[in-house]
Amino acid sequence: MTDARIAGLRVRMGEHALDALLVTSLPNIRYLTGFSGSHALAVVTARNAFFISDSRYALQSAREVKRFRRIIGSLGLFEDAAAAKTLRGCRAAGFESDSLTYAQYRSLRTLFPRVPFRPTSGIVESLALVKDRREVACIEEAAAISDSVFHDVLKFLRPGVTELEIAAEISWLNRQRGAESDAFDVIVASGPRGALPHARPTARKIRRGELILLDFGSTIRGYCSDLTRTVALGGVPRRLREAYRAVLEANESAAASARGGMTARALDAVARGCIRRRGFGRYFIHSLGHGLGLRVHERPRVSALSPEVLQAGSVITIEPGIYIPGSGGVRIEDDVLLGDRGCRVLTRSPRELIVL
Amino acid sequence: MTDARIAGLRVRMGEHALDALLVTSLPNIRYLTGFSGSHALAVVTARNAFFISDSRYALQSAREVKRFRRIIGSLGLFEDAAAAKTLRGCRAAGFESDSLTYAQYRSLRTLFPRVPFRPTSGIVESLALVKDRREVACIEEAAAISDSVFHDVLKFLRPGVTELEIAAEISWLNRQRGAESDAFDVIVASGPRGALPHARPTARKIRRGELILLDFGSTIRGYCSDLTRTVALGGVPRRLREAYRAVLEANESAAASARGGMTARALDAVARGCIRRRGFGRYFIHSLGHGLGLRVHERPRVSALSPEVLQAGSVITIEPGIYIPGSGGVRIEDDVLLGDRGCRVLTRSPRELIVL
Repeated sequence: MTDARIAGLRVRMGEHALDALLVTSLPNIRYLTGFSGSHALAVVTARNAFFISDSRYALQSAREVKRFRRIIGSLGLFEDAAAAKTLRGCRAAGFESDSLTYAQYRSLRTLFPRVPFRPTSGIVESLALVKDRREVACIEEAAAISDSVFHDVLKFLRPGVTELEIAAEISWLNRQRGAESDAFDVIVASGPRGALPHARPTARKIRRGELILLDFGSTIRGYCSDLTRTVALGGVPRRLREAYRAVLEANESAAASARGGMTARALDAVARGCIRRRGFGRYFIHSLGHGLGLRVHERPRVSALSPEVLQAGSVITIEPGIYIPGSGGVRIEDDVLLGDRGCRVLTRSPRELIVL
Repeated sequence: MTDARIAGLRVRMGEHALDALLVTSLPNIRYLTGFSGSHALAVVTARNAFFISDSRYALQSAREVKRFRRIIGSLGLFEDAAAAKTLRGCRAAGFESDSLTYAQYRSLRTLFPRVPFRPTSGIVESLALVKDRREVACIEEAAAISDSVFHDVLKFLRPGVTELEIAAEISWLNRQRGAESDAFDVIVASGPRGALPHARPTARKIRRGELILLDFGSTIRGYCSDLTRTVALGGVPRRLREAYRAVLEANESAAASARGGMTARALDAVARGCIRRRGFGRYFIHSLGHGLGLRVHERPRVSALSPEVLQAGSVITIEPGIYIPGSGGVRIEDDVLLGDRGCRVLTRSPRELIVL
């Protein structure tokens, strides 16, 4: 499989007239090599494939990385790549311009004075856009864990518990159920704090009459799930119930429409239209979703501005939301695998409003 | 206080002949503006200070960010900065070359065709090197939480429990005690896995006769603690007990010597000397420590190669270790605040070998 990825990458390199690519983005390195650590460089040329790291990762990389020539150096990743003459004879070496820092770029130019470098963007990401069966299985497993965590954390939600305690419980349940880690920092936003789409959990105690928004994910072999549910602690004001219905309708309409071959913005428009028609248009302040894989946010962008055509085999989130300042927020997020005629929803937690 | 930081930054900018600095590193943005989110740009000029983010962070940034002109845009951070003419009239605008990607650099050049840009490195980091009283209080609070987590997790350590379960427990306790989050992914390494300095917890069950290495941290208002203790599950082989004594002596000697005004490498040498004299020199394979603040690894580097002079007011870790392949590892790590004549140790967990 890694063989297929290297072969696929070489095809893309050919299309970009590159005879080498330096891969510095860690998720991309993991995608190509299998390495799960945090310090490495991959260099793929027409004939060779090098993996470079240092002594801290000697044992781990020996276990994880196949089909790459492994270099365990001590000078620094680029210095070690230069010492091993990884780019000898290259006439057009691409680097990942969205990952390489300016300082690293300067150091490349110094270390490889004769190599013509070219900025690239999204080459490995474009390979990773369509998931293979093993990748889908990982995301599915991660999604099932998140569903089970959501089910179990409900028992824990009662007035007086703090957002931080709930986040801790989610994190703990996540690992108890077999996740390697949280896919991102758990979000718990209660009452008016729900109006902050990226709220961090605080010491605030949840109260009766509030909506509680829970957004979290699990990882399995590096692959992420991403699940949001919003539940009510007792009865909540009518306006919030209406907002919930609008978000639910948007979520379900988008899931019913999603398929490979449509544009991302058309899918966004389905959800946005539902929310607008119910009078909450100006409170849906982010895009509908994003791709999901080794990164919790990756291509495709599913936004009102994205002309990108969605592909069968991509996994994306569908996460409409309404955020009313001073009052609260609702978001319902699912992960779906796109097919040619529709999509398969991987997260299966109930979507109807749960009143605790 | 933020005022003082902006003023301090302008002094540094003057020293570097810059009349503007674009701050893209998130910990640096947090340091200057107070913003704790994950999408922002700060632009400080001789007369103005701009904070740029998007609608997802409108409410949060309104609450957190004072003394900066807030721009909530929708075009992209650099595009919004250009539209607001933040760099009008600038003759030398610095950017952070260790954080800005090559693609961002190109986009800066396109968006601000008349502004002369200059790469910079470590300007905000140099301001953040000396902590103020409020920062020290945050790190102290985080350290106290880590101590309490260590105390409580001991009850959980018994043969048959897995490293992953211990890590989940630490993470959970951390938030129960009031931490915002783990400062980094919890490390639990048992038996021979202790010889991997960056071990991730696995499904391995801990056994009697082994050392268990626990390395974790807490965050309070973004500030990190970082604590490592190594405990024995029943009696362990004599060689590992000797390694423990060597590491303990190295830790305590370094803490007794640490003060502002000495070089980082002199401090590293104190600890390394202890370990070498006890015959374990070749097993101490990393540097003695690192600075601690809004980042869990920041300046100063405390390594054998670092000529940097340590400053009173910096918080650093002291974490000698011995890693014997096939056998196990020992590390004892504390966080200390450097003063002019010595240091104050902020982490107070017992250092003597605990045998469970």
